[in-house]
Amino acid sequence: MHTTTTVHIINRGRGRVVEPTPNSPSSLLPHKSQSPLLPSLVLRIFVCEVAARRMEGGVGEVDHLAGERATAQFDVEHMKVAWAGSRHAVDVADRMARLVASDPVFRKDNRTMLPRKELFKDTLRKATHAWKRIVELRLTEEEANLLRLYVDQPGYVDLHWGMFVPAIKGQGTEEQQKKWLPLAYKFQIIGCYAQTELGHGSNVQGLETTATFDPKTDEFVMHSPTLTSSKWWPGGLGKASTHAVVYARLITEGKDYGIHGFIVQLRSLEDHSPLPGVTLGDIGGKFGSGAYNSMDNGLLRFDHVRIPRDQMLMRLSQVTKEGKYVHSDVPKQLLYGTMVFVRQTIVADASKALSRATCIAVRYSAIRKQFGPQTGGPETQVLNYKTQQSRLFPLLASAYAFRFVGEWLKWLYTDVMLKLEAKDFSTLQEAHACTAGLKAVTTSVTADGIEECRKLCGGHGYLNSSGLPELFAIYVPACTYEGDNVVLLLQVARFLMKTVSQLASGKQPVGTTAYMGNIQYLMQCRCGVNTAEDWLNPAAIREVFEARALRMAVNCAQNINKAPGQEEGFHELSPDLLEVAVAHVQLIIVTKFIEKLEQDILGEGVKEQLRNLCNVYALYLVHKHLGDFLSTGCITARQGALANEQLGKLYAQVRPNAVALVDAFNYTDHYLGSVLGRYDGNVYPALYEEAWKDPLNDTVVPDGYREHLRPLLKQQLKLSRL
Amino acid sequence: MHTTTTVHIINRGRGRVVEPTPNSPSSLLPHKSQSPLLPSLVLRIFVCEVAARRMEGGVGEVDHLAGERATAQFDVEHMKVAWAGSRHAVDVADRMARLVASDPVFRKDNRTMLPRKELFKDTLRKATHAWKRIVELRLTEEEANLLRLYVDQPGYVDLHWGMFVPAIKGQGTEEQQKKWLPLAYKFQIIGCYAQTELGHGSNVQGLETTATFDPKTDEFVMHSPTLTSSKWWPGGLGKASTHAVVYARLITEGKDYGIHGFIVQLRSLEDHSPLPGVTLGDIGGKFGSGAYNSMDNGLLRFDHVRIPRDQMLMRLSQVTKEGKYVHSDVPKQLLYGTMVFVRQTIVADASKALSRATCIAVRYSAIRKQFGPQTGGPETQVLNYKTQQSRLFPLLASAYAFRFVGEWLKWLYTDVMLKLEAKDFSTLQEAHACTAGLKAVTTSVTADGIEECRKLCGGHGYLNSSGLPELFAIYVPACTYEGDNVVLLLQVARFLMKTVSQLASGKQPVGTTAYMGNIQYLMQCRCGVNTAEDWLNPAAIREVFEARALRMAVNCAQNINKAPGQEEGFHELSPDLLEVAVAHVQLIIVTKFIEKLEQDILGEGVKEQLRNLCNVYALYLVHKHLGDFLSTGCITARQGALANEQLGKLYAQVRPNAVALVDAFNYTDHYLGSVLGRYDGNVYPALYEEAWKDPLNDTVVPDGYREHLRPLLKQQLKLSRL
Repeated sequence: MHTTTTVHIINRGRGRVVEPTPNSPSSLLPHKSQSPLLPSLVLRIFVCEVAARRMEGGVGEVDHLAGERATAQFDVEHMKVAWAGSRHAVDVADRMARLVASDPVFRKDNRTMLPRKELFKDTLRKATHAWKRIVELRLTEEEANLLRLYVDQPGYVDLHWGMFVPAIKGQGTEEQQKKWLPLAYKFQIIGCYAQTELGHGSNVQGLETTATFDPKTDEFVMHSPTLTSSKWWPGGLGKASTHAVVYARLITEGKDYGIHGFIVQLRSLEDHSPLPGVTLGDIGGKFGSGAYNSMDNGLLRFDHVRIPRDQMLMRLSQVTKEGKYVHSDVPKQLLYGTMVFVRQTIVADASKALSRATCIAVRYSAIRKQFGPQTGGPETQVLNYKTQQSRLFPLLASAYAFRFVGEWLKWLYTDVMLKLEAKDFSTLQEAHACTAGLKAVTTSVTADGIEECRKLCGGHGYLNSSGLPELFAIYVPACTYEGDNVVLLLQVARFLMKTVSQLASGKQPVGTTAYMGNIQYLMQCRCGVNTAEDWLNPAAIREVFEARALRMAVNCAQNINKAPGQEEGFHELSPDLLEVAVAHVQLIIVTKFIEKLEQDILGEGVKEQLRNLCNVYALYLVHKHLGDFLSTGCITARQGALANEQLGKLYAQVRPNAVALVDAFNYTDHYLGSVLGRYDGNVYPALYEEAWKDPLNDTVVPDGYREHLRPLLKQQLKLSRL
Repeated sequence: MHTTTTVHIINRGRGRVVEPTPNSPSSLLPHKSQSPLLPSLVLRIFVCEVAARRMEGGVGEVDHLAGERATAQFDVEHMKVAWAGSRHAVDVADRMARLVASDPVFRKDNRTMLPRKELFKDTLRKATHAWKRIVELRLTEEEANLLRLYVDQPGYVDLHWGMFVPAIKGQGTEEQQKKWLPLAYKFQIIGCYAQTELGHGSNVQGLETTATFDPKTDEFVMHSPTLTSSKWWPGGLGKASTHAVVYARLITEGKDYGIHGFIVQLRSLEDHSPLPGVTLGDIGGKFGSGAYNSMDNGLLRFDHVRIPRDQMLMRLSQVTKEGKYVHSDVPKQLLYGTMVFVRQTIVADASKALSRATCIAVRYSAIRKQFGPQTGGPETQVLNYKTQQSRLFPLLASAYAFRFVGEWLKWLYTDVMLKLEAKDFSTLQEAHACTAGLKAVTTSVTADGIEECRKLCGGHGYLNSSGLPELFAIYVPACTYEGDNVVLLLQVARFLMKTVSQLASGKQPVGTTAYMGNIQYLMQCRCGVNTAEDWLNPAAIREVFEARALRMAVNCAQNINKAPGQEEGFHELSPDLLEVAVAHVQLIIVTKFIEKLEQDILGEGVKEQLRNLCNVYALYLVHKHLGDFLSTGCITARQGALANEQLGKLYAQVRPNAVALVDAFNYTDHYLGSVLGRYDGNVYPALYEEAWKDPLNDTVVPDGYREHLRPLLKQQLKLSRL
């Protein structure tokens, strides 16, 4: 009977029937536990080989999701273009994804099983190999970035390219850029971004590290005066970086000029050992197995380390030989440009992470069956349950919504830069508030959404082989870095309160706050929805979101004014202000999705599907935040019920298209890294194969049996007489 | 200067000034990275020693939270009693916690760094050592359970005592209990509970494993006919168990009698190798590092394995020698008793897990400072921010709320058992719905709450040394096991719909649904709240929660009746039904908290503090679910605003008591396992010490430098000519 089981496994596992021969490793699967060590080794080879075959992703011999794909009512190839932004974007991403997926060095299916040191070594290997490929294949910057994206393993290169180089570009003088950028571009040096400290995160002005100018030697003295001033968290700092842009209090002529950036060499370029007076280390294990533990987030302490004066980043201000602190004529506002850029990439990453999670959950929900109709018969696909749809489809819609608002942010960034170069700072605050808010909302929703998708996969979602635990653990820091989400939302709220207060004086709000200028109408307008279908009207949706956001803001502003002082009022009402900011940001996302649908979108049925998703996103928010909409009188209880009714109808329309809608993300099985999310849906044999890879299965009888289990079972414990 | 830094570290790290001697390991900390290998070893010894000193928990030489403790307005010792349930409960828990904390074998601070095999071996060691101590010290069952609780590491013993033994007690005949229980009690056999399969979770009736009776040999033949019939997930199955209670389809005389339990030996008692025809293995890595990976969740396949007929659990039904299937006169309902018992323990565990997370977050929020008053001056304790309070205090209140409803469930269980023995099944359905709903709501809130507490600790909450990542990863399965929360809530909703439909026929609802009998009043009553203070009236709170729950249930029932068929209606409206069930369960929790406050509670200020927490819990829910309360007309928008206003005032009252309120949980530093949650609040030196323990810090220059980093930096990559 083993053999038939084997055939069965192979059949489902590889999509074709294989006559098992006694020595075919696969035929060992069911015997596995009766044969001591050999089989697991053989099996590993077998499994790796299977894994390798699968690396390229795409369909296997049998597509268990073919039925789902057949019900799609739109052109998936065109949806891929709508998602990626252009045909070119689809093609280049596709090439890079396959390049990575087909390269064994980039294998990541064993990542969660590697001890920390091996995992970090694996990161170094992949980073160097990626660079080798980039050079060998003469990849463009666009291609190189995509290749790094699909390698999909946090490492020092992220900070080198993402923070170190941009910091020098943004804050370095032309000479400094000429000197340092070529070294960084060729990886003759590896750089990181050393800002946060053990005792100081969000409040940059509170940093304690000092850079004291010594005119005698024309040097800065970098020092860590306290334990809490230890640099803490910078990625790439712990083990890999040779240099860092370090943020410290500039002190010259006995005066503290606040936080400035300095280029500091940390390690010898000869043997990589830390330079004298420099203490470096990794800050220790982080959430999850695999996950962000591939990154050497580090700690750094200075003991009076001296650097040449010209390693202060001097684009905005300088210290002269004599120690005079002088401002340059470059406007400080230029720094905002970088911030807008970084946050725009974070929003883009949010849509990627959330789309990966929903892709896994949607596909597995179409494979997984549970309970049958009362009438008996086969079990029902989990994806057919309304409870599953009502949790999963809003997340799918959010992934698309974040994708499109992220695209719009790219435009906003270029617009901001053009204005900055023209010294026009009129829209800067609004653009900053907008990006800060979008960063906060999209990352929070994505973090919670990934965990929700994991729960939607039932017990198996808890296995590392589902890919979801690692995706979650890698993603959640996004809620904290580049501005804690709560801190950011309070900044947005502060800007909104200011905007409201200026309405009286007739100052016209700009950009994403322009709707506030329509205050007379929005404060008294009544929603005209009479039927569930009326909720499909984008104008109606947009109006209730505008009215809700504005009325919440105005209420809050009035309550603040009741307080003895503005600051006290702001402090007391800060929990409400968070809700005001969220309402405003949700309006932005809904509006940009609606505006996207006003553009030409090619492909049969593509726009219709996107319209459904836009409506799901908006009406889901109406239902979730019903209290906001009712308490501000924007809609009636009955209209709220109609929105919920329409939402149910929309789920039914999304259902037959769900699998095709996640196929449009165009992710390889390698990038997804999930046996539950396999393109071919052949989940159960894959889960079974993955299980045997665990080191605990190397032996049938576990280590520790002789020492701990046998004495217990044999009643031979040496008990002390007490 | 190192030395002064050292003094500084030691000073903060140990709470007293130490003159560093060149060879004192502590003085190596700042030098660390300049000295290759030795220091880290020395440091480890130093750190372990420090850790050992700290194991007992409790205050160090300096209490950095003394100021917070001084502001408490109640008697903490009496609050400990209120939390634990009795003075005896406090004392015995305290003794067992310290017994564990002071025993080096139970050390767990290195758990997240252990590779899987070592982690599992560590579990075996701890389990055997715990048993040794239980026997040596002649611990009572109560003491033994507490000792296992404080060992705090998932392992096979949890299933042996928690599922295997109870299954035999509940479903075995007297002879079966006489035969098997003594073996289990002495650990001559180790048992697990093998129910779920690779392709079958929540739907027990869908299990595929077969137990076919063979009258010729008077045996059952256990078989796994398909890959999806592989037993999958049972804890302790993978490597440790010798026996299992296996659930399979009973087939006799060619007829399938559905799922029954069978005691099956899996491994040899001589050498622990699997018996012929039995395939056993671990299902692989799970969420998090450390966490549940200490447990050998396993897979099991049978290839026609034969067991004696008398190993079918025959309390409820038997198969005769001839193969006749016969029911016993024992009522099936008895099985519900077990379910109620297990779920009651899960609710108790929820309050433990959530209280641990809030304890960590509250203490660290009192230590952590960020941003200052606009006027300048020192930074503000994070715990003083309203945004922090509005996220943290409702979770603190929930921990207390779950604790008290869990206590009440103990009473419910005994009540149910008494009724069952008296063959009174009248309240069984209601009790079952009540426990199912409480399990679902408390586990979901706790899982999300732990992650929220982690975010409330900022970046450092992401470090394993914060304890929160592991607490989360260990806890989340509670949302899935013993009934998926969504499935359970739908069961509750089904019961509520039935109860509503029977109201017309005058059938009086019982227990936690009794309030529905008051339908005439509750459907039309108006909330009398006129001021924020009015929301402090428990009668007002209770009434709006009753009205909200009932009105939502009635609305849903009416909408179901509009559907062509009951089942269709139920399916279509299932997302709304989830909300109905949650509203009902929240009412139960609020009610039990209010009833708790009607009892005598000793200790100065204790009851006042609990009243504040009860109000925080209730009014937070009013704000969070404002849409429910407004759309059902239970309260007006103004009353909703007043509830929110009162909530803010309550936060201010909780603030000075927050640290003392988490001290009342009486957890040792060992059990908390968090440097952020240390009783003495001496967080930063502890974080710094923990970092150096990471294996990546064993060497200054990381493994992989020569192979991967140096060639890159030295521009010596061997590039293929393409």
